[in-house]
Amino acid sequence: MRTAYHEQMADLNRILGHMSQLAGVAMERSTQALLQADLAVAEGVISDHEQIVRLSAQAEEQAFALLALQAPVAGDLRAIVSGFQIVADVDRMGALALHVSKVARRRHPAKALPEEVNGYFAEMGRLAVALAMNAREVLNSQDPSDALRLQADDDAMDDLHRHLFTVLMDREWRHGVAAAVDVTLLGRYYERFADHAVLIGRRVVFQSTGKTPEQFLEGQQQAQA
Amino acid sequence: MRTAYHEQMADLNRILGHMSQLAGVAMERSTQALLQADLAVAEGVISDHEQIVRLSAQAEEQAFALLALQAPVAGDLRAIVSGFQIVADVDRMGALALHVSKVARRRHPAKALPEEVNGYFAEMGRLAVALAMNAREVLNSQDPSDALRLQADDDAMDDLHRHLFTVLMDREWRHGVAAAVDVTLLGRYYERFADHAVLIGRRVVFQSTGKTPEQFLEGQQQAQA
Repeated sequence: MRTAYHEQMADLNRILGHMSQLAGVAMERSTQALLQADLAVAEGVISDHEQIVRLSAQAEEQAFALLALQAPVAGDLRAIVSGFQIVADVDRMGALALHVSKVARRRHPAKALPEEVNGYFAEMGRLAVALAMNAREVLNSQDPSDALRLQADDDAMDDLHRHLFTVLMDREWRHGVAAAVDVTLLGRYYERFADHAVLIGRRVVFQSTGKTPEQFLEGQQQAQA
Repeated sequence: MRTAYHEQMADLNRILGHMSQLAGVAMERSTQALLQADLAVAEGVISDHEQIVRLSAQAEEQAFALLALQAPVAGDLRAIVSGFQIVADVDRMGALALHVSKVARRRHPAKALPEEVNGYFAEMGRLAVALAMNAREVLNSQDPSDALRLQADDDAMDDLHRHLFTVLMDREWRHGVAAAVDVTLLGRYYERFADHAVLIGRRVVFQSTGKTPEQFLEGQQQAQA
């Protein structure tokens, strides 16, 4: 029974890791579509989104199969429920990447972004992709310390996001309200994408240790004291 | 066993219904804080948020207790997993109401909204509260037809949200970029709040019928044909 559980759980985490990677690739291409007003790339992200949706359904079925294994113990149940929650997180990451491509498509052939903020979005895109790829890594490795490190990349994202708002609010902003609205929503999409990656990291800590990230950190500090 | 399951499931849905109501009340007060730049009301929402967080934890524990009941059948498992997903939805609704109050607090004593869009937000607030209260009703009644009707209220929210953007994009907008950024984010908070209420309705259809909303509707149309 335990062997079946461990094998099937590893399968579930592999599907989730694959979804995370696809969400990262989607955000990478969406950022390219956005920065270069590349319609073909945006259309590609939009049509490939179906793949993430399909994997979501597959991951949920896999998690249900795990629940239906005879008498999983309490810790197993919690790990499986985390699995369902991670499906929702990666699914949302895919949807947010999709939103970015849709903005790029809506503004094409114009660029949605004023030149002035390109650097911010290039960097937010880089961080978002790194977070998605790190989420994939920790889903596979189940390493709680690596899982917690996703928070640090998200802090960098929050800093960028805050700076972006100071640029927007500056009296020197000359790009009008329509561009400001696009920049505001786009910034939010990248920030939320990163938030979900951090949540995946937190859930992996729980899956692998049975502890919340806060309990896990406290335990580590006590072990070192 | 089945009796224990049904009783505990009803308890879980009662907690979720209560959370939904609290999220609705929070959004009602946040809208008031926003429209009237009422700091005390905003602070109240912010300090009361703890209540929703506490109930989230309680609802998750209740759902775990349900999972741990001996050998729930496949349909029960799906209903319990929907319960976990509903926890995440109402939790997010509470967080979005909180975001609105935080904007009101940040701009106080000024009003965050230009007079011109007050009517939109009053109406989006009314719809959001109605959606939260209807979500509570269907969580308690488990009526799949009522659950699907939440979609119609959300269509009204989407219409308002779209109109709001046409106001923002209008060349006559004279309130500057900072106000446009606030209006953009606030509009998104109301829209997402409504989306989560609709998701709760969809999950109740699944809990009560074992079917997706699409399958349920198709079944009804076939029964009438």
